Amino acid sequence: MITIVSTGPGLIECMSGEAIEAVKNCDVVVGYKKYVTLLEPLLDSQELFVNGMKKEVDRCRKALELSKEGKKVAMVSGGDAGIYGIGGIMQEIVLEEGPETEIYSIPGISASHAAAAALGAPIVHDSCYISLSDLLTDIEMIKKRLDLAGQGDFIVSLYNPKSKGRPHYIEMARDILLRHKKSRYPPCWDCQKCKARQPRSVYN
Amino acid sequence: MITIVSTGPGLIECMSGEAIEAVKNCDVVVGYKKYVTLLEPLLDSQELFVNGMKKEVDRCRKALELSKEGKKVAMVSGGDAGIYGIGGIMQEIVLEEGPETEIYSIPGISASHAAAAALGAPIVHDSCYISLSDLLTDIEMIKKRLDLAGQGDFIVSLYNPKSKGRPHYIEMARDILLRHKKSRYPPCWDCQKCKARQPRSVYN
Repeated sequence: MITIVSTGPGLIECMSGEAIEAVKNCDVVVGYKKYVTLLEPLLDSQELFVNGMKKEVDRCRKALELSKEGKKVAMVSGGDAGIYGIGGIMQEIVLEEGPETEIYSIPGISASHAAAAALGAPIVHDSCYISLSDLLTDIEMIKKRLDLAGQGDFIVSLYNPKSKGRPHYIEMARDILLRHKKSRYPPCWDCQKCKARQPRSVYN
Repeated sequence: MITIVSTGPGLIECMSGEAIEAVKNCDVVVGYKKYVTLLEPLLDSQELFVNGMKKEVDRCRKALELSKEGKKVAMVSGGDAGIYGIGGIMQEIVLEEGPETEIYSIPGISASHAAAAALGAPIVHDSCYISLSDLLTDIEMIKKRLDLAGQGDFIVSLYNPKSKGRPHYIEMARDILLRHKKSRYPPCWDCQKCKARQPRSVYN
């Protein structure tokens, strides 16, 4: 049995009761180091399997292996596991390598909603999530989606806004959106996963 | 002080610890009847102000009035209060009628994420939220957004899918999306706010 546990924006008090119980009652916690560190107050006798970024496939295989040994596995993921989290990869690997495995998914609060609450800027109307990571999505598709979102006057939440390899995608996204949006719309930076409740906002 | 409390998809165990504490520790709970009923296990000596649909403005004015009397008010909203919830109206009314009032927003799990988890169908890639309610958005704009979402191959979460006055908008939405999406994409009905964890899904 694998429970995919969404841990929300980075504070224990932002996790659901269901998510907390799943972590407390599992045999093994599997996850990216940063997310597991958050859970320390909930850890007692659980085994841990922790690794780093870009090791998602290894992590999912390990979770499946442990589940096949009869262990109750909590696969943890920040935010909501289905929103650019481990949920999709975990489901794929189970489907391919252990389709008899039972999976239960616990949803969580995604960064977009947490940031909007922390900013005091509720999203209110129709909106989009767009990831600026081009690891799995072609950059031309990302640009097309940004342009369509601008045409539709959607509120846009950008995920994976920048990395060392692509420091300028955030400016590219802003420029595409500003083709359509007027400057009275304040773009807001993510609030460091809602930790501080002291977000920075930038008006352009 | 007004705390906007997002109560998530309809189960106490899907609420965050922060949301539960806010309800337990307030003087007055203000909300739509259905959402307040969910909170019964958390209610003790709190006053209640409860009303029905389309009474959102009255509800927000009452919350502001109670806050001005010095009470700690929990304004509750299903899902995430910023996603088609009470968050936007509450902020507007405070801005217009009591800008000195302190507001704190607690995010929650929106129906889209809860439904995806219950269905075992994580959203995974770029996605949109579109409401089919034409009370505040012109129907032509709704159609345009559906078409743009289809063009961009976004995963689409439809909110307010139907009502007595507009029973066929859901079919309209499907037809617009199917201009672009192939039939291998299974549209899935909302899972009754995740209550049963027995969602229905429909393949068209």
